[in-house]
Amino acid sequence: MKDSRPAPPLDPSLTLPCVILDKPQLADNIGSVARVMANFGLQELRLVNPRDGWPQERAWAMSSGAFWPLEGAKIYDTVADAVADLTYVYATTARPRETQLPVITPREAASQAWGQAHQHLKTGLLFGAERAGLETSDIALSHAIVTIPVDPHFHSLNLAQAVNIVLYEWRLQVMDAPKPAFTQNMDVPAALEHMHGLYGHLEDELEKAGFFYPPEKKESMVRNLRVTLNRAQMTEQEVRTWRGVVTALTRGRGRVLAKLAQQKKDEV
Amino acid sequence: MKDSRPAPPLDPSLTLPCVILDKPQLADNIGSVARVMANFGLQELRLVNPRDGWPQERAWAMSSGAFWPLEGAKIYDTVADAVADLTYVYATTARPRETQLPVITPREAASQAWGQAHQHLKTGLLFGAERAGLETSDIALSHAIVTIPVDPHFHSLNLAQAVNIVLYEWRLQVMDAPKPAFTQNMDVPAALEHMHGLYGHLEDELEKAGFFYPPEKKESMVRNLRVTLNRAQMTEQEVRTWRGVVTALTRGRGRVLAKLAQQKKDEV
Repeated sequence: MKDSRPAPPLDPSLTLPCVILDKPQLADNIGSVARVMANFGLQELRLVNPRDGWPQERAWAMSSGAFWPLEGAKIYDTVADAVADLTYVYATTARPRETQLPVITPREAASQAWGQAHQHLKTGLLFGAERAGLETSDIALSHAIVTIPVDPHFHSLNLAQAVNIVLYEWRLQVMDAPKPAFTQNMDVPAALEHMHGLYGHLEDELEKAGFFYPPEKKESMVRNLRVTLNRAQMTEQEVRTWRGVVTALTRGRGRVLAKLAQQKKDEV
Repeated sequence: MKDSRPAPPLDPSLTLPCVILDKPQLADNIGSVARVMANFGLQELRLVNPRDGWPQERAWAMSSGAFWPLEGAKIYDTVADAVADLTYVYATTARPRETQLPVITPREAASQAWGQAHQHLKTGLLFGAERAGLETSDIALSHAIVTIPVDPHFHSLNLAQAVNIVLYEWRLQVMDAPKPAFTQNMDVPAALEHMHGLYGHLEDELEKAGFFYPPEKKESMVRNLRVTLNRAQMTEQEVRTWRGVVTALTRGRGRVLAKLAQQKKDEV
């Protein structure tokens, strides 16, 4: 028995996680993901650059009637855009890259997402493309790497199967977990677009200052900076403070440079 | 990176569970199941009456290189045949039928299967057909019903996704669970073919005795008897004892009938 409308949420006061697929290749898989979302009570699907465009008939055919995640699917050009309004992102990947991010199990991710849902913080569950997986620069936009404990001799898990396992663990939280307790004096972290603003600001200034040297190391240097700042889980106020810090340092540098230029002139 | 040979088992002393698909309809799903088995380290696949025959090319295509469960797949005519040499069977179904079997979670099933693997007892993980699920008479051959906690508003889980979740829980046991401790003075339960022999014997005799009345209730009466005896988890010796019990009761009845016939004759 299935219903082509979304199920009523178990608890309307929860902020449910969304599922983000980065560059999904096969419409079949997108449809299977929609079905799994319906099985486990999630509704919001985000697609970053689906290879064959959107919408695609095969997705609807494979969804087995779970049309609502497909009909409501939002399309983005970049992972950064897709996560901009979120507060937390969990990136599922078979091969944890060399980033300074915590590597956690699907169960731990679900447990954290469960806590966030109760705090009205929006969480994204991010999955990479069928073959390529996630790019390291996109993983760096996340707060943790989720790995599914597959046999290392055969770790190529189908995309919809990976989503299935993470969402199954989510469902177990919904069914069994007690309502989490919170430390009420903590302010909530900023949505990621604020963090992205800070990154951009900082990286522009570092670029001008010649910090990224040698140039071929810039990418990994940027990534490491972002991962560190992401881990800090700043509030909006803290983001503003840090943008102020960057500005102050930059102006300070401007003054130092002006002074040096003046000294040079004086010497001439 | 994937390997078209099976991974070496983590612990060669374990008796690994097999996966049994009852009347699978789509070769795509059989292939996806093989892939999931490879992901989570299982190897033995049993197929009961695959709808479109066997082998089927699509299964190989969908396995993503996990050929060994497909190449080693054994074909059976009935679920009873497929489980005959097993000691425990777990039937996964979205809708637990009205049987007196324990209904457990995938996690509990995996934990039990983990214990059995260490006792060298062969366990079967049984899954029904895509739409129809398992027939009640086949569920009655099992020791427990496994239900995946899907949203009741959309419980139609894809076959390979159901296998995926049960095998993921199996894998978590393999990765994390301590070696189980056993009560060493318990004898191991008989393989199911012995139980089936006892069922057949008992049911034949009950049939002759006119026990199954009204006839349209026979099927459910048989099922309930089987479920009860399955729960008893008899050793081979106990099965022999109980067949003796049935024989003794039958002969006793024969003697009573003979005596009654003699009395009638005497009265004439």
